[in-house]
Amino acid sequence: MKIAVLGYGTIGSGVVEVLERNGESIAKRAGEEITVKYVLDLREFPGSPIEDMLVHEFSTIAEDEEVGCVVETMGGIEPAYSYVKECLLRGKSVCTSNKALVAKHGAELLEIARQKKINFLFEASVGGGIPIIRPLNQSLTSEEILEITGIVNGTTNYILTKMSQEGATFEAALKEAQDLGYAERNPEADVEGHDAGRKLAILASLSYGMQVDFEDIYMEGITKITDTDFKYAEVLGAEIKLLAQGKKVEDKFYAMVTPKMIREDNPLYSVRGVFNSILVKGNTLGDVMFYGSGAGKLPTASAVVADVIDATKHWGTNITTIWSSKKLALSDHKEAESGFFVRVPEAEEAKAREVFGEVEEVKLSAAAGVVGEFAFLTKKMSEKAFEEKAAKVTVLNRIRTEWTAE
Amino acid sequence: MKIAVLGYGTIGSGVVEVLERNGESIAKRAGEEITVKYVLDLREFPGSPIEDMLVHEFSTIAEDEEVGCVVETMGGIEPAYSYVKECLLRGKSVCTSNKALVAKHGAELLEIARQKKINFLFEASVGGGIPIIRPLNQSLTSEEILEITGIVNGTTNYILTKMSQEGATFEAALKEAQDLGYAERNPEADVEGHDAGRKLAILASLSYGMQVDFEDIYMEGITKITDTDFKYAEVLGAEIKLLAQGKKVEDKFYAMVTPKMIREDNPLYSVRGVFNSILVKGNTLGDVMFYGSGAGKLPTASAVVADVIDATKHWGTNITTIWSSKKLALSDHKEAESGFFVRVPEAEEAKAREVFGEVEEVKLSAAAGVVGEFAFLTKKMSEKAFEEKAAKVTVLNRIRTEWTAE
Repeated sequence: MKIAVLGYGTIGSGVVEVLERNGESIAKRAGEEITVKYVLDLREFPGSPIEDMLVHEFSTIAEDEEVGCVVETMGGIEPAYSYVKECLLRGKSVCTSNKALVAKHGAELLEIARQKKINFLFEASVGGGIPIIRPLNQSLTSEEILEITGIVNGTTNYILTKMSQEGATFEAALKEAQDLGYAERNPEADVEGHDAGRKLAILASLSYGMQVDFEDIYMEGITKITDTDFKYAEVLGAEIKLLAQGKKVEDKFYAMVTPKMIREDNPLYSVRGVFNSILVKGNTLGDVMFYGSGAGKLPTASAVVADVIDATKHWGTNITTIWSSKKLALSDHKEAESGFFVRVPEAEEAKAREVFGEVEEVKLSAAAGVVGEFAFLTKKMSEKAFEEKAAKVTVLNRIRTEWTAE
Repeated sequence: MKIAVLGYGTIGSGVVEVLERNGESIAKRAGEEITVKYVLDLREFPGSPIEDMLVHEFSTIAEDEEVGCVVETMGGIEPAYSYVKECLLRGKSVCTSNKALVAKHGAELLEIARQKKINFLFEASVGGGIPIIRPLNQSLTSEEILEITGIVNGTTNYILTKMSQEGATFEAALKEAQDLGYAERNPEADVEGHDAGRKLAILASLSYGMQVDFEDIYMEGITKITDTDFKYAEVLGAEIKLLAQGKKVEDKFYAMVTPKMIREDNPLYSVRGVFNSILVKGNTLGDVMFYGSGAGKLPTASAVVADVIDATKHWGTNITTIWSSKKLALSDHKEAESGFFVRVPEAEEAKAREVFGEVEEVKLSAAAGVVGEFAFLTKKMSEKAFEEKAAKVTVLNRIRTEWTAE
């Protein structure tokens, strides 16, 4: 199998490295040797091991019939989408780590692959090296998936872990993440939940077999989470995590990315730092969880290479993936229900109790140094009901909770 | 696809139930309807929904060419092995939850399936409903697997969790597990580590692509773990878990089932109760972990049904599984290295310090009520080195540790 790699950035160069390092066992698993014939990049890499394979024109790859599989690690929608589509139409399998591309055009590209009896694979697009796409497609096939909840953004999980463990403010934790290279200089895509939203679009589309559009997902980031919130979380035995959740509640489907408080009974509770984890709830299976490095050069590249091996093994046959281009009608997130942790000024305690009815007060010790507040947990209610009540008091902050008092 | 179910016990009846409950989505995933034509059992089930499918003679199933896939959920080696082999030789795919059968005859049965262009699948043989076999075969294919460590026996994990959380003795925790149906009246296979050993034989064979025999695995159960050990574990911030471990250290392979102390930095630390979890360490991937219900009727049946779906989708083609019948030479477990937690009589402190050299003392508070002991952690050393030293003092108990001071 001759392959081409589109884009020699972090992941692309990782793919070349993994193929090199584990070449022997990869050939055994794939049933034949896998060699990189071309690397497409606009830059030059003089003296690098890929110097001889480097091309600057996509057409060189597209028109070479010897290339059976193309790895796309450029990122972004264009020109990735045009390139990938052309490769598939020309009968080349494609393996990609590009979540934006998969979230937006996954259904169409899978359909082309199906017609051409080749494969469009994207294990690395969610959760880096964690096997989650293939298990959803091939292992959890006997399940009706009721819920899929992921910690799928390492940057925000790193920041939240720092805030939890060291009492850092959001700003300080973000700065540290940036200094360590875990967060970008413009961190918006991560901290506002958009990266997690794209991954959720993919996970939910696969879980329910229909198109879930990124644009329809309700997203709330972590920028409003404060060190004070974490003081309360500690008292509650809770962690605050950015959860990407797809849920089926009776006939309704919800997809939301929001920071939530979770307790130790939730398997995601102990997922720390840049690690990712995805929890799937099936109707007969109960909970299963997949955990690992959600990003990073080699783990992500490893997942891409596993796809290349699968494409090689399945040369001439399409691996069924159920993802219709028909759009899944998501319910308004305001109908989704959860409990809420709420902080209001101390002076409004009586009013809050009146508005929210029965609440469970959350008290900090004096040593916490937080004064003049009344904090509490509500019963389970819809977002809409919460907003109506919240409008009647001065909400300092509110965080959804995964557990609720009955 | 017409299938037959061999054995209408817990898992077998679960398979029928899952096919019934999720029939519609299963047909969609499999590309065709899957119906149960026969259920083989020696017993009668008057009035049950499978009454009309019940047969008592295996030959009825073997000779019916309409049956394309056979589910084996009888357990044990015979007659399961003869039945499964005959089905495969007759061109029927087989899906099984039978760990003893797979550990012993997996390589041979996979080879028959390969030759016949059908499939022998066994996702449910390890970890119940947790997808682990398929990820090892199809997702971690680009990895050199350096280590696979599992909590793969729910009974012992339940007992250890009870001891940890409630300070129960081994005997009391075992009795409770028996009363709840989590442990059998004769609990030997679980508490001595044999069940975990069979599962490790399967995981290690798949990880390294060669036969790892159950008989060659060093196994130590949990019967010698006491409530006193857990008092020390608490001080150390550790849990004691029964770990099934396959390790590649340079050119040597080890396979052992032993109780070990692990700390919070180990992802297996928070796996509690009857849950199972398997941690895989790859050379480029780092750690990935798979978590879920390791047993139970419906979760296990769900994994069997996922295999049936895969067998249906791959009708006429064999899914590659690398598991040679060639035996993997395991190294003597006495060469394996770890740290040790050791308890000796107080009077032997000086001697222990002399024998073990630099040790880290572990002190309990007076409230723990343990007197007359000196407890400590050793540096990393081989089992052999430990035994030589331990022979010179009176060891009250010793437990391996996953972390070691440098």
